[in-house]
Amino acid sequence: MKNAVYAMIAGLVLVLSAGSAWATSPEDALKYRKAVYQVYKWNMDAMAAMARGEAPFDAERFALHAGRINAMREDAIEGYVENSAIGDTTSKPEIWSQWDAFMQRQNAFEQEIGKLAETAAGGDARAIRAQFGAVGQSCKACHDDFRVSR
Amino acid sequence: MKNAVYAMIAGLVLVLSAGSAWATSPEDALKYRKAVYQVYKWNMDAMAAMARGEAPFDAERFALHAGRINAMREDAIEGYVENSAIGDTTSKPEIWSQWDAFMQRQNAFEQEIGKLAETAAGGDARAIRAQFGAVGQSCKACHDDFRVSR
Repeated sequence: MKNAVYAMIAGLVLVLSAGSAWATSPEDALKYRKAVYQVYKWNMDAMAAMARGEAPFDAERFALHAGRINAMREDAIEGYVENSAIGDTTSKPEIWSQWDAFMQRQNAFEQEIGKLAETAAGGDARAIRAQFGAVGQSCKACHDDFRVSR
Repeated sequence: MKNAVYAMIAGLVLVLSAGSAWATSPEDALKYRKAVYQVYKWNMDAMAAMARGEAPFDAERFALHAGRINAMREDAIEGYVENSAIGDTTSKPEIWSQWDAFMQRQNAFEQEIGKLAETAAGGDARAIRAQFGAVGQSCKACHDDFRVSR
């Protein structure tokens, strides 16, 4: 009996520490991480338009958009709480079963967007376009493994 | 005829400069600004739980959440493009017809969240709670005037 109680407490501590510090729901966590990626998308689209020549290339605006994503590059992870492969999500269950591999993709993205923010501040259009491509590849690498195609 | 062409060009320039630098749609702009506020909400909820004692007070986590919002405190504005009081939105048309008053609310929010990020770094729970309240008030002041109640 005592052991069962200890096991329950240990399980509870694990749940609390694996998730976030407050009592959030999987639904709220899903909404949150989708929102983070939506904000990324807006800024990526703005940079893509410039990189493709659909909008005038403006190094200052490029740096602004890169800087915005860079400032929130770690934010989505908190939304991947346990049991939140739910509802209208494209998250594959492998995110949780292969967490280390998922985090490797995340870390690669963080590095590439960090480099883009630096490169954009430099103002060299050719270098910026190349590094923007590298960010896109880091997004795609994770989507290929961990996102359901629709 | 010449005057009509000039008027058209002037109109086009106005549209391009009032909105964003790339060809975005009002629908995308709406999605974007809602996403920004959704990210705010996640971080505000986490701080609220600590401020209310529903979660253990953790100054470091509080500073993390305040810092995240502070880093993106200016981001929503770009989503308020012309003609985007559309679809499933709580944005009142007064946002556009009283733009300066709207931006005053925005600037007040930016100041208060900036102060919260500073205060949170200090670690004084009482001061943090007070400043968190000030941020909430700055949100509410804007909602009262410019958001449709549901």
